[in-house]
Amino acid sequence: MEKILLNGELVNRKIAIDIEDRGYQFGDGVYEVIGVYNNIAFKLEEHLERLFESAEKINMDIELTIKQLKEKVLKLKKENLLKDGLIYVQVTRGITRRNHAYLDNKIKPNLIAYVLHQNRLPSEVYQNGVPVILTKDIRWLRCDIKSLNLLPNVLAKQNAIEKGAFEAILYRNDNITITEGSSTNVFVIKDKTIYTHPANNYILNGITRQIILDICIKLNLKVQEIEFSKSFLLNADEVFISGTYIDIVPVSRVLGEDVEFTNQKSITFKLMKELNKLTMSI
Amino acid sequence: MEKILLNGELVNRKIAIDIEDRGYQFGDGVYEVIGVYNNIAFKLEEHLERLFESAEKINMDIELTIKQLKEKVLKLKKENLLKDGLIYVQVTRGITRRNHAYLDNKIKPNLIAYVLHQNRLPSEVYQNGVPVILTKDIRWLRCDIKSLNLLPNVLAKQNAIEKGAFEAILYRNDNITITEGSSTNVFVIKDKTIYTHPANNYILNGITRQIILDICIKLNLKVQEIEFSKSFLLNADEVFISGTYIDIVPVSRVLGEDVEFTNQKSITFKLMKELNKLTMSI
Repeated sequence: MEKILLNGELVNRKIAIDIEDRGYQFGDGVYEVIGVYNNIAFKLEEHLERLFESAEKINMDIELTIKQLKEKVLKLKKENLLKDGLIYVQVTRGITRRNHAYLDNKIKPNLIAYVLHQNRLPSEVYQNGVPVILTKDIRWLRCDIKSLNLLPNVLAKQNAIEKGAFEAILYRNDNITITEGSSTNVFVIKDKTIYTHPANNYILNGITRQIILDICIKLNLKVQEIEFSKSFLLNADEVFISGTYIDIVPVSRVLGEDVEFTNQKSITFKLMKELNKLTMSI
Repeated sequence: MEKILLNGELVNRKIAIDIEDRGYQFGDGVYEVIGVYNNIAFKLEEHLERLFESAEKINMDIELTIKQLKEKVLKLKKENLLKDGLIYVQVTRGITRRNHAYLDNKIKPNLIAYVLHQNRLPSEVYQNGVPVILTKDIRWLRCDIKSLNLLPNVLAKQNAIEKGAFEAILYRNDNITITEGSSTNVFVIKDKTIYTHPANNYILNGITRQIILDICIKLNLKVQEIEFSKSFLLNADEVFISGTYIDIVPVSRVLGEDVEFTNQKSITFKLMKELNKLTMSI
Protein backbone atom coordinates (compact mmCIF):
# COMPACT_ATOMS: atom_id res chain seq x y z
CA MET A 1 0.00 0.00 0.00
CA GLU A 2 1.40 3.34 -1.02
CA LYS A 3 2.20 5.69 1.84
CA ILE A 4 2.30 9.45 1.78
CA LEU A 5 3.88 11.84 4.22
CA LEU A 6 1.40 14.00 6.13
CA ASN A 7 2.95 16.33 8.67
CA GLY A 8 5.67 13.91 9.58
CA GLU A 9 3.58 10.74 9.62
CA LEU A 10 3.44 8.13 6.89
CA VAL A 11 -0.24 7.56 6.17
CA ASN A 12 -2.44 6.04 3.52
CA ARG A 13 -2.83 7.97 0.32
CA LYS A 14 -6.35 9.26 0.73
CA ILE A 15 -5.97 12.08 3.19
CA ALA A 16 -8.46 14.00 5.25
CA ILE A 17 -8.03 17.72 4.76
CA ASP A 18 -10.21 20.54 5.91
CA ILE A 19 -12.15 22.40 3.23
CA GLU A 20 -10.52 25.52 4.67
CA ASP A 21 -6.97 24.30 4.08
CA ARG A 22 -5.64 27.43 2.42
CA GLY A 23 -3.87 25.34 -0.19
CA TYR A 24 -7.21 24.09 -1.42
CA GLN A 25 -9.04 27.44 -1.43
CA PHE A 26 -6.31 29.91 -2.37
CA GLY A 27 -3.40 27.87 -3.70
CA ASP A 28 -1.70 29.39 -0.67
CA GLY A 29 1.35 27.16 -0.58
CA VAL A 30 4.60 26.12 -2.24
CA TYR A 31 6.01 22.88 -3.59
CA GLU A 32 8.99 21.03 -5.03
CA VAL A 33 9.48 18.05 -7.31
CA ILE A 34 12.66 16.04 -6.84
CA GLY A 35 14.03 13.49 -9.31
CA VAL A 36 15.15 10.08 -8.08
CA TYR A 37 17.78 8.26 -10.13
CA ASN A 38 19.19 4.86 -9.16
CA ASN A 39 17.74 5.16 -5.70
CA ILE A 40 19.23 8.62 -5.07
CA ALA A 41 17.19 11.80 -4.65
CA PHE A 42 19.13 14.12 -6.96
CA LYS A 43 19.96 17.57 -5.55
CA LEU A 44 17.53 16.98 -2.69
CA GLU A 45 19.04 19.65 -0.50
CA GLU A 46 18.94 22.26 -3.26
CA HIS A 47 15.26 21.51 -3.82
CA LEU A 48 14.44 21.72 -0.13
CA GLU A 49 16.40 24.95 0.19
CA ARG A 50 14.33 26.41 -2.62
CA LEU A 51 11.14 25.16 -0.92
CA PHE A 52 12.11 27.11 2.18
CA GLU A 53 12.98 30.15 0.04
CA SER A 54 9.59 30.02 -1.69
CA ALA A 55 7.88 29.71 1.69
CA GLU A 56 9.79 32.69 3.01
CA LYS A 57 8.80 34.77 -0.02
CA ILE A 58 5.15 34.30 0.90
CA ASN A 59 5.86 34.78 4.63
CA MET A 60 5.16 31.20 5.54
CA ASP A 61 7.05 29.34 8.23
CA ILE A 62 7.53 25.62 7.50
CA GLU A 63 8.25 24.84 11.17
CA LEU A 64 10.97 22.30 10.42
CA THR A 65 14.64 22.51 9.59
CA ILE A 66 15.80 21.51 6.13
CA LYS A 67 17.64 18.63 7.77
CA GLN A 68 14.50 17.36 9.50
CA LEU A 69 12.48 17.56 6.29
CA LYS A 70 15.25 15.82 4.37
CA GLU A 71 15.13 12.87 6.77
CA LYS A 72 11.35 12.60 6.46
CA VAL A 73 11.48 12.75 2.68
CA LEU A 74 14.15 10.07 2.53
CA LYS A 75 12.08 7.88 4.84
CA LEU A 76 9.10 8.34 2.50
CA LYS A 77 11.24 7.34 -0.47
CA LYS A 78 12.54 4.27 1.31
CA GLU A 79 9.12 3.17 2.59
CA ASN A 80 7.74 3.32 -0.97
CA LEU A 81 10.76 1.53 -2.48
CA LEU A 82 11.21 4.35 -4.97
CA LYS A 83 14.29 3.74 -7.15
CA ASP A 84 13.45 5.87 -10.18
CA GLY A 85 10.82 8.55 -10.34
CA LEU A 86 9.82 11.67 -8.49
CA ILE A 87 9.18 12.92 -5.00
CA TYR A 88 6.58 15.67 -4.65
CA VAL A 89 6.55 17.87 -1.54
CA GLN A 90 4.06 20.65 -0.83
CA VAL A 91 3.44 22.90 2.12
CA THR A 92 0.25 24.90 2.47
CA ARG A 93 -0.23 27.69 4.96
CA GLY A 94 -2.72 25.70 7.01
CA ILE A 95 -6.32 26.12 8.04
CA THR A 96 -8.08 29.41 8.75
CA ARG A 97 -11.64 30.53 8.59
CA ARG A 98 -11.91 31.58 4.97
CA ASN A 99 -10.45 35.04 4.55
CA HIS A 100 -7.91 36.24 2.03
CA ALA A 101 -5.67 37.54 4.79
CA TYR A 102 -4.19 34.81 6.97
CA LEU A 103 -3.80 37.19 9.91
CA ASP A 104 -2.64 34.75 12.55
CA ASN A 105 1.00 33.83 12.17
CA LYS A 106 0.45 30.85 14.42
CA ILE A 107 -1.61 28.76 12.01
CA LYS A 108 0.00 25.39 11.44
CA PRO A 109 1.24 24.65 7.93
CA ASN A 110 0.18 21.42 6.25
CA LEU A 111 3.05 19.46 4.76
CA ILE A 112 2.35 16.65 2.33
CA ALA A 113 4.76 14.57 0.27
CA TYR A 114 4.35 11.53 -1.92
CA VAL A 115 6.27 9.61 -4.53
CA LEU A 116 5.57 9.07 -8.20
CA HIS A 117 6.96 5.92 -9.77
CA GLN A 118 7.62 7.26 -13.21
CA ASN A 119 9.71 6.15 -16.16
CA ARG A 120 12.03 8.55 -17.91
CA LEU A 121 10.97 9.87 -21.29
CA PRO A 122 11.68 7.54 -24.22
CA SER A 123 15.17 7.86 -25.71
CA GLU A 124 13.78 9.10 -29.05
CA VAL A 125 12.63 12.25 -27.27
CA TYR A 126 16.20 13.02 -26.30
CA GLN A 127 17.52 11.99 -29.70
CA ASN A 128 15.02 13.73 -31.96
CA GLY A 129 13.81 16.55 -29.78
CA VAL A 130 10.24 17.73 -29.34
CA PRO A 131 7.92 20.23 -31.01
CA VAL A 132 6.82 23.26 -29.00
CA ILE A 133 4.34 26.08 -29.37
CA LEU A 134 4.88 29.73 -28.47
CA THR A 135 2.15 31.29 -26.38
CA LYS A 136 1.56 34.39 -24.27
CA ASP A 137 2.87 34.43 -20.73
CA ILE A 138 -0.20 35.51 -18.74
CA ARG A 139 1.13 34.47 -15.33
CA TRP A 140 1.53 36.69 -12.28
CA LEU A 141 4.69 38.72 -11.73
CA ARG A 142 6.27 36.50 -9.04
CA CYS A 143 7.13 33.45 -11.10
CA ASP A 144 10.28 33.11 -8.97
CA ILE A 145 8.03 31.62 -6.26
CA LYS A 146 7.28 27.94 -6.81
CA SER A 147 3.69 28.31 -5.65
CA LEU A 148 0.54 26.22 -6.04
CA ASN A 149 -1.02 28.91 -8.26
CA LEU A 150 -0.46 26.98 -11.47
CA LEU A 151 -3.62 27.47 -13.49
CA PRO A 152 -1.98 29.56 -16.25
CA ASN A 153 0.73 26.90 -16.54
CA VAL A 154 -1.94 24.19 -16.73
CA LEU A 155 -3.81 26.02 -19.49
CA ALA A 156 -0.63 26.67 -21.49
CA LYS A 157 0.56 23.04 -21.20
CA GLN A 158 -2.86 21.67 -22.13
CA ASN A 159 -2.95 23.98 -25.15
CA ALA A 160 0.47 22.67 -26.22
CA ILE A 161 -0.54 19.02 -25.84
CA GLU A 162 -3.78 19.55 -27.77
CA LYS A 163 -1.79 21.08 -30.63
CA GLY A 164 0.57 18.10 -30.72
CA ALA A 165 3.45 19.87 -28.97
CA PHE A 166 5.40 18.78 -25.91
CA GLU A 167 5.67 22.17 -24.23
CA ALA A 168 4.42 25.74 -24.45
CA ILE A 169 7.21 28.30 -24.47
CA LEU A 170 5.95 31.56 -23.03
CA TYR A 171 6.54 35.16 -24.06
CA ARG A 172 5.46 38.28 -22.27
CA ASN A 173 2.96 40.11 -24.39
CA ASP A 174 4.27 43.60 -23.79
CA ASN A 175 7.83 43.14 -24.98
CA ILE A 176 7.79 39.75 -26.76
CA THR A 177 10.48 38.50 -24.38
CA ILE A 178 10.74 34.73 -24.06
CA THR A 179 10.56 33.87 -20.35
CA GLU A 180 10.38 30.09 -19.90
CA GLY A 181 8.20 27.05 -20.61
CA SER A 182 5.00 26.19 -18.75
CA SER A 183 7.01 23.81 -16.54
CA THR A 184 10.54 24.13 -17.92
CA ASN A 185 13.33 26.66 -18.44
CA VAL A 186 14.29 27.63 -21.98
CA PHE A 187 17.77 27.96 -23.48
CA VAL A 188 18.74 29.02 -26.98
CA ILE A 189 22.13 28.76 -28.61
CA LYS A 190 23.35 31.19 -31.24
CA ASP A 191 26.90 31.38 -32.59
CA LYS A 192 28.10 29.05 -29.82
CA THR A 193 26.77 31.29 -27.05
CA ILE A 194 24.03 30.01 -24.73
CA TYR A 195 21.22 32.40 -23.83
CA THR A 196 18.65 32.06 -21.08
CA HIS A 197 16.34 34.48 -19.27
CA PRO A 198 17.86 36.03 -16.13
CA ALA A 199 16.70 34.52 -12.83
CA ASN A 200 14.39 37.34 -11.78
CA ASN A 201 10.68 37.54 -10.94
CA TYR A 202 9.63 36.45 -14.45
CA ILE A 203 10.95 32.88 -14.23
CA LEU A 204 11.52 30.07 -11.79
CA ASN A 205 15.23 29.56 -11.29
CA GLY A 206 15.23 25.82 -12.03
CA ILE A 207 17.65 23.56 -10.18
CA THR A 208 18.41 21.90 -13.53
CA ARG A 209 18.88 25.38 -15.02
CA GLN A 210 21.48 26.14 -12.37
CA ILE A 211 23.29 22.85 -12.98
CA ILE A 212 23.37 23.58 -16.70
CA LEU A 213 24.94 26.98 -16.06
CA ASP A 214 27.59 25.26 -13.92
CA ILE A 215 28.26 22.76 -16.70
CA CYS A 216 28.66 25.61 -19.20
CA ILE A 217 31.36 27.14 -16.99
CA LYS A 218 33.07 23.79 -16.68
CA LEU A 219 33.00 23.31 -20.48
CA ASN A 220 34.12 26.89 -21.14
CA LEU A 221 30.91 27.66 -23.00
CA LYS A 222 29.88 31.28 -23.20
CA VAL A 223 26.60 32.04 -21.39
CA GLN A 224 24.43 35.14 -21.45
CA GLU A 225 21.67 35.41 -18.85
CA ILE A 226 19.77 38.13 -20.69
CA GLU A 227 16.31 38.72 -22.14
CA PHE A 228 15.84 37.62 -25.72
CA SER A 229 12.92 37.85 -28.11
CA LYS A 230 10.69 35.41 -29.95
CA SER A 231 12.42 36.18 -33.23
CA PHE A 232 15.82 35.59 -31.63
CA LEU A 233 14.61 32.13 -30.60
CA LEU A 234 13.23 31.43 -34.06
CA ASN A 235 16.61 32.34 -35.56
CA ALA A 236 18.67 30.37 -33.06
CA ASP A 237 21.00 27.51 -33.97
CA GLU A 238 19.72 25.26 -31.17
CA VAL A 239 16.94 25.45 -28.60
CA PHE A 240 16.35 23.24 -25.59
CA ILE A 241 14.20 23.07 -22.49
CA SER A 242 15.18 21.80 -19.05
CA GLY A 243 13.54 20.66 -15.87
CA THR A 244 13.43 18.06 -13.13
CA TYR A 245 12.36 14.71 -14.58
CA ILE A 246 12.90 15.72 -18.24
CA ASP A 247 16.51 16.95 -17.63
CA ILE A 248 17.48 18.50 -21.00
CA VAL A 249 15.22 17.97 -24.01
CA PRO A 250 16.11 19.45 -27.42
CA VAL A 251 13.45 21.41 -29.27
CA SER A 252 13.01 20.13 -32.82
CA ARG A 253 10.59 22.72 -34.13
CA VAL A 254 8.13 25.46 -33.30
CA LEU A 255 4.63 24.58 -34.50
CA GLY A 256 3.07 27.25 -36.65
CA GLU A 257 6.47 28.72 -37.53
CA ASP A 258 8.57 27.89 -40.53
CA VAL A 259 11.56 26.78 -38.51
CA GLU A 260 13.19 23.48 -37.60
CA PHE A 261 16.14 22.77 -35.34
CA THR A 262 16.18 19.13 -36.35
CA ASN A 263 19.82 18.68 -37.24
CA GLN A 264 21.36 21.24 -34.98
CA LYS A 265 21.99 19.85 -31.55
CA SER A 266 25.75 19.61 -31.10
CA ILE A 267 26.08 21.85 -28.02
CA THR A 268 22.77 20.62 -26.62
CA PHE A 269 24.03 17.02 -26.88
CA LYS A 270 27.24 18.00 -25.13
CA LEU A 271 25.28 19.48 -22.22
CA MET A 272 22.95 16.47 -22.08
CA LYS A 273 25.93 14.17 -21.84
CA GLU A 274 27.43 16.12 -18.95
CA LEU A 275 24.12 16.28 -17.10
CA ASN A 276 23.66 12.54 -17.59
CA LYS A 277 27.06 11.95 -16.05
CA LEU A 278 25.91 13.82 -12.96
CA THR A 279 22.57 12.07 -12.55
CA MET A 280 23.95 8.64 -13.36
CA SER A 281 27.11 8.78 -11.31
CA ILE A 282 25.47 9.73 -8.04
CA MET B 1 -22.68 18.79 13.43
CA GLU B 2 -21.89 20.96 10.45
CA LYS B 3 -22.40 19.33 7.10
CA ILE B 4 -20.67 20.13 3.85
CA LEU B 5 -21.65 19.24 0.33
CA LEU B 6 -19.28 16.83 -1.39
CA ASN B 7 -20.29 15.81 -4.89
CA GLY B 8 -23.97 15.89 -4.10
CA GLU B 9 -23.80 14.25 -0.68
CA LEU B 10 -23.99 16.04 2.66
CA VAL B 11 -21.03 14.80 4.69
CA ASN B 12 -19.06 15.74 7.76
CA ARG B 13 -16.72 18.66 7.46
CA LYS B 14 -13.38 16.89 7.40
CA ILE B 15 -13.20 15.49 3.91
CA ALA B 16 -10.99 12.90 2.32
CA ILE B 17 -9.40 14.22 -0.82
CA ASP B 18 -6.68 12.74 -2.94
CA ILE B 19 -3.29 14.47 -2.86
CA GLU B 20 -3.63 14.59 -6.64
CA ASP B 21 -6.87 16.56 -6.58
CA ARG B 22 -5.90 19.22 -9.10
CA GLY B 23 -7.43 21.90 -6.93
CA TYR B 24 -4.90 21.13 -4.24
CA GLN B 25 -1.82 20.89 -6.48
CA PHE B 26 -2.53 23.46 -9.19
CA GLY B 27 -5.39 25.62 -7.93
CA ASP B 28 -7.10 24.10 -10.97
CA GLY B 29 -10.66 25.06 -10.15
CA VAL B 30 -13.19 27.83 -9.73
CA TYR B 31 -15.41 29.05 -6.92
CA GLU B 32 -18.22 31.35 -5.81
CA VAL B 33 -19.26 32.99 -2.55
CA ILE B 34 -22.94 33.72 -2.10
CA GLY B 35 -24.41 36.00 0.56
CA VAL B 36 -27.37 34.85 2.63
CA TYR B 37 -29.67 37.53 4.07
CA ASN B 38 -32.72 36.72 6.14
CA ASN B 39 -32.63 33.10 5.08
CA ILE B 40 -32.40 33.93 1.35
CA ALA B 41 -29.38 33.19 -0.86
CA PHE B 42 -29.05 36.54 -2.63
CA LYS B 43 -28.56 36.37 -6.41
CA LEU B 44 -27.86 32.65 -6.16
CA GLU B 45 -28.58 32.00 -9.81
CA GLU B 46 -26.31 34.81 -10.97
CA HIS B 47 -23.48 33.40 -8.85
CA LEU B 48 -24.00 29.88 -10.15
CA GLU B 49 -24.15 31.16 -13.72
CA ARG B 50 -20.80 32.86 -13.18
CA LEU B 51 -19.41 29.64 -11.67
CA PHE B 52 -20.33 27.81 -14.85
CA GLU B 53 -18.85 30.62 -16.95
CA SER B 54 -15.57 30.49 -15.01
CA ALA B 55 -15.50 26.71 -15.44
CA GLU B 56 -16.09 27.05 -19.16
CA LYS B 57 -13.24 29.56 -19.46
CA ILE B 58 -10.83 26.94 -18.14
CA ASN B 59 -12.46 24.19 -20.21
CA MET B 60 -13.91 22.39 -17.23
CA ASP B 61 -17.26 20.62 -17.31
CA ILE B 62 -19.16 20.77 -14.01
CA GLU B 63 -21.39 17.81 -14.97
CA LEU B 64 -24.53 19.29 -13.44
CA THR B 65 -27.11 21.78 -14.58
CA ILE B 66 -27.34 25.11 -12.80
CA LYS B 67 -30.77 24.03 -11.59
CA GLN B 68 -29.42 20.81 -10.07
CA LEU B 69 -26.61 22.64 -8.33
CA LYS B 70 -29.00 25.28 -7.05
CA GLU B 71 -31.13 22.62 -5.39
CA LYS B 72 -28.12 21.02 -3.73
CA VAL B 73 -26.83 24.36 -2.47
CA LEU B 74 -30.23 25.26 -1.02
CA LYS B 75 -30.38 21.86 0.69
CA LEU B 76 -26.95 22.56 2.20
CA LYS B 77 -28.13 25.93 3.46
CA LYS B 78 -31.25 24.43 4.98
CA GLU B 79 -29.45 21.51 6.60
CA ASN B 80 -27.05 23.92 8.30
CA LEU B 81 -29.81 26.32 9.39
CA LEU B 82 -28.00 29.21 7.74
CA LYS B 83 -30.00 32.43 8.04
CA ASP B 84 -27.28 35.04 7.63
CA GLY B 85 -23.82 34.43 6.30
CA LEU B 86 -22.17 32.96 3.27
CA ILE B 87 -22.25 29.90 1.08
CA TYR B 88 -18.96 28.87 -0.52
CA VAL B 89 -18.95 26.61 -3.59
CA GLN B 90 -15.86 25.35 -5.37
CA VAL B 91 -15.30 22.94 -8.23
CA THR B 92 -11.88 21.49 -8.97
CA ARG B 93 -11.02 19.65 -12.15
CA GLY B 94 -10.66 16.33 -10.37
CA ILE B 95 -7.89 13.81 -9.88
CA THR B 96 -5.17 13.00 -12.37
CA ARG B 97 -1.69 11.61 -12.04
CA ARG B 98 0.28 14.84 -11.47
CA ASN B 99 0.89 16.52 -14.80
CA HIS B 100 0.28 20.13 -15.74
CA ALA B 101 -1.86 19.06 -18.68
CA TYR B 102 -5.11 17.38 -17.69
CA LEU B 103 -5.30 15.49 -20.96
CA ASP B 104 -8.31 13.31 -20.25
CA ASN B 105 -11.56 15.19 -20.57
CA LYS B 106 -13.31 12.44 -18.68
CA ILE B 107 -11.83 13.15 -15.26
CA LYS B 108 -14.54 13.76 -12.70
CA PRO B 109 -14.68 17.24 -11.18
CA ASN B 110 -14.79 17.55 -7.40
CA LEU B 111 -17.54 19.83 -6.14
CA ILE B 112 -17.48 21.04 -2.56
CA ALA B 113 -19.70 23.57 -0.82
CA TYR B 114 -20.06 24.68 2.77
CA VAL B 115 -21.63 27.48 4.75
CA LEU B 116 -20.07 30.19 6.86
CA HIS B 117 -22.15 31.61 9.68
CA GLN B 118 -20.84 35.14 9.59
CA ASN B 119 -22.05 38.44 10.96
CA ARG B 120 -22.19 41.52 8.75
CA LEU B 121 -19.53 44.16 9.28
CA PRO B 122 -20.22 46.60 12.15
CA SER B 123 -22.37 49.58 11.22
CA GLU B 124 -19.50 52.03 11.90
CA VAL B 125 -17.69 50.53 8.92
CA TYR B 126 -20.56 51.56 6.66
CA GLN B 127 -20.95 54.91 8.37
CA ASN B 128 -17.31 55.99 8.61
CA GLY B 129 -15.74 54.08 5.76
CA VAL B 130 -12.44 52.22 5.81
CA PRO B 131 -8.80 53.03 5.10
CA VAL B 132 -7.16 51.33 2.11
CA ILE B 133 -3.68 51.02 0.68
CA LEU B 134 -2.69 51.17 -2.97
CA THR B 135 -0.44 48.38 -4.17
CA LYS B 136 0.79 46.86 -7.42
CA ASP B 137 -1.47 44.46 -9.26
CA ILE B 138 0.84 41.49 -9.89
CA ARG B 139 -1.91 39.01 -10.74
CA TRP B 140 -2.23 37.00 -13.95
CA LEU B 141 -4.01 38.40 -16.99
CA ARG B 142 -7.26 36.43 -16.63
CA CYS B 143 -8.72 38.04 -13.54
CA ASP B 144 -12.14 37.64 -15.14
CA ILE B 145 -11.98 33.96 -14.12
CA LYS B 146 -12.94 33.39 -10.48
CA SER B 147 -10.26 30.75 -10.01
CA LEU B 148 -8.57 29.18 -6.98
CA ASN B 149 -5.26 30.86 -7.91
CA LEU B 150 -5.53 33.53 -5.22
CA LEU B 151 -2.04 33.84 -3.79
CA PRO B 152 -1.43 37.39 -5.09
CA ASN B 153 -4.78 38.43 -3.63
CA VAL B 154 -3.84 36.81 -0.33
CA LEU B 155 -0.51 38.63 -0.20
CA ALA B 156 -2.09 41.98 -1.10
CA LYS B 157 -4.86 41.63 1.50
CA GLN B 158 -2.45 40.53 4.21
CA ASN B 159 -0.24 43.51 3.40
CA ALA B 160 -3.25 45.81 3.75
CA ILE B 161 -4.30 44.33 7.09
CA GLU B 162 -0.77 44.53 8.49
CA LYS B 163 -0.67 48.21 7.57
CA GLY B 164 -3.97 48.87 9.34
CA ALA B 165 -6.05 49.06 6.16
CA PHE B 166 -9.20 47.17 5.27
CA GLU B 167 -8.39 46.48 1.64
CA ALA B 168 -5.60 46.75 -0.92
CA ILE B 169 -6.62 48.58 -4.07
CA LEU B 170 -4.54 47.36 -6.98
CA TYR B 171 -2.96 49.20 -9.87
CA ARG B 172 -1.20 47.74 -12.86
CA ASN B 173 2.42 48.71 -12.75
CA ASP B 174 2.85 49.51 -16.44
CA ASN B 175 0.16 52.11 -16.81
CA ILE B 176 -0.85 53.01 -13.23
CA THR B 177 -4.43 51.98 -13.99
CA ILE B 178 -6.56 51.12 -10.97
CA THR B 179 -8.09 47.69 -11.58
CA GLU B 180 -9.91 46.51 -8.43
CA GLY B 181 -9.35 45.49 -4.81
CA SER B 182 -7.80 42.22 -3.67
CA SER B 183 -11.33 40.82 -3.15
CA THR B 184 -13.56 43.75 -4.13
CA ASN B 185 -14.43 46.01 -7.06
CA VAL B 186 -13.53 49.68 -6.89
CA PHE B 187 -15.68 52.68 -7.79
CA VAL B 188 -14.75 56.36 -7.72
CA ILE B 189 -17.06 59.33 -8.04
CA LYS B 190 -15.97 62.62 -9.55
CA ASP B 191 -18.29 65.49 -10.42
CA LYS B 192 -21.32 63.25 -9.89
CA THR B 193 -20.13 60.67 -12.41
CA ILE B 194 -19.33 57.13 -11.24
CA TYR B 195 -16.23 55.48 -12.66
CA THR B 196 -15.25 51.82 -12.53
CA HIS B 197 -12.85 49.61 -14.50
CA PRO B 198 -14.43 47.94 -17.55
CA ALA B 199 -15.35 44.27 -17.10
CA ASN B 200 -12.50 42.79 -19.12
CA ASN B 201 -9.68 40.36 -18.34
CA TYR B 202 -8.14 42.66 -15.71
CA ILE B 203 -11.00 42.42 -13.18
CA LEU B 204 -13.63 40.08 -11.89
CA ASN B 205 -17.04 41.31 -12.90
CA GLY B 206 -18.58 41.26 -9.42
CA ILE B 207 -22.23 40.38 -9.00
CA THR B 208 -22.50 43.30 -6.58
CA ARG B 209 -20.70 45.47 -9.16
CA GLN B 210 -23.37 44.56 -11.71
CA ILE B 211 -26.18 45.32 -9.27
CA ILE B 212 -24.62 48.71 -8.52
CA LEU B 213 -24.50 49.55 -12.23
CA ASP B 214 -28.19 48.64 -12.47
CA ILE B 215 -28.97 50.87 -9.50
CA CYS B 216 -27.08 53.75 -11.16
CA ILE B 217 -29.28 53.43 -14.23
CA LYS B 218 -32.38 53.35 -12.04
CA LEU B 219 -31.23 56.49 -10.19
CA ASN B 220 -30.21 58.27 -13.39
CA LEU B 221 -26.61 58.47 -12.25
CA LYS B 222 -23.97 58.83 -14.93
CA VAL B 223 -21.59 55.86 -15.14
CA GLN B 224 -18.34 55.47 -17.02
CA GLU B 225 -16.87 51.98 -17.29
CA ILE B 226 -13.40 53.15 -18.28
CA GLU B 227 -9.83 52.89 -17.05
CA PHE B 228 -8.74 55.53 -14.58
CA SER B 229 -5.45 56.22 -12.86
CA LYS B 230 -4.17 56.28 -9.30
CA SER B 231 -4.07 60.08 -9.31
CA PHE B 232 -7.66 60.20 -10.58
CA LEU B 233 -8.68 58.09 -7.59
CA LEU B 234 -6.71 60.28 -5.19
CA ASN B 235 -8.50 63.35 -6.56
CA ALA B 236 -11.96 61.80 -6.55
CA ASP B 237 -14.90 63.14 -4.54
CA GLU B 238 -15.90 59.72 -3.22
CA VAL B 239 -14.43 56.22 -3.40
CA PHE B 240 -16.05 52.95 -2.45
CA ILE B 241 -15.46 49.22 -2.73
CA SER B 242 -18.03 46.49 -3.28
CA GLY B 243 -18.36 42.76 -2.94
CA THR B 244 -20.44 39.88 -1.71
CA TYR B 245 -20.68 39.98 2.08
CA ILE B 246 -19.37 43.56 2.41
CA ASP B 247 -21.91 44.97 -0.11
CA ILE B 248 -20.80 48.64 -0.50
CA VAL B 249 -18.18 50.04 1.88
CA PRO B 250 -17.04 53.69 1.59
CA VAL B 251 -13.30 54.37 1.51
CA SER B 252 -12.34 56.99 4.12
CA ARG B 253 -8.70 57.45 3.23
CA VAL B 254 -5.69 56.07 1.39
CA LEU B 255 -2.88 55.26 3.81
CA GLY B 256 0.41 56.89 2.88
CA GLU B 257 -1.34 59.52 0.77
CA ASP B 258 -2.41 62.94 1.90
CA VAL B 259 -6.05 62.43 1.05
CA GLU B 260 -9.25 61.80 2.98
CA PHE B 261 -12.76 61.13 1.73
CA THR B 262 -14.17 61.33 5.23
CA ASN B 263 -17.02 63.73 4.70
CA GLN B 264 -17.82 62.98 1.11
CA LYS B 265 -20.18 60.08 0.78
CA SER B 266 -23.48 61.45 -0.49
CA ILE B 267 -23.74 59.40 -3.69
CA THR B 268 -22.14 56.38 -2.01
CA PHE B 269 -24.78 56.52 0.73
CA LYS B 270 -27.51 56.74 -1.87
CA LEU B 271 -26.22 53.58 -3.57
CA MET B 272 -25.81 51.78 -0.23
CA LYS B 273 -29.40 52.56 0.63
CA GLU B 274 -30.69 51.17 -2.65
CA LEU B 275 -28.57 48.03 -2.36
CA ASN B 276 -29.81 47.54 1.19
CA LYS B 277 -33.36 47.71 -0.05
CA LEU B 278 -32.60 44.86 -2.43
CA THR B 279 -30.87 42.59 0.07
CA MET B 280 -33.36 43.30 2.85
CA SER B 281 -36.54 43.07 0.84
CA ILE B 282 -35.89 39.67 -0.63
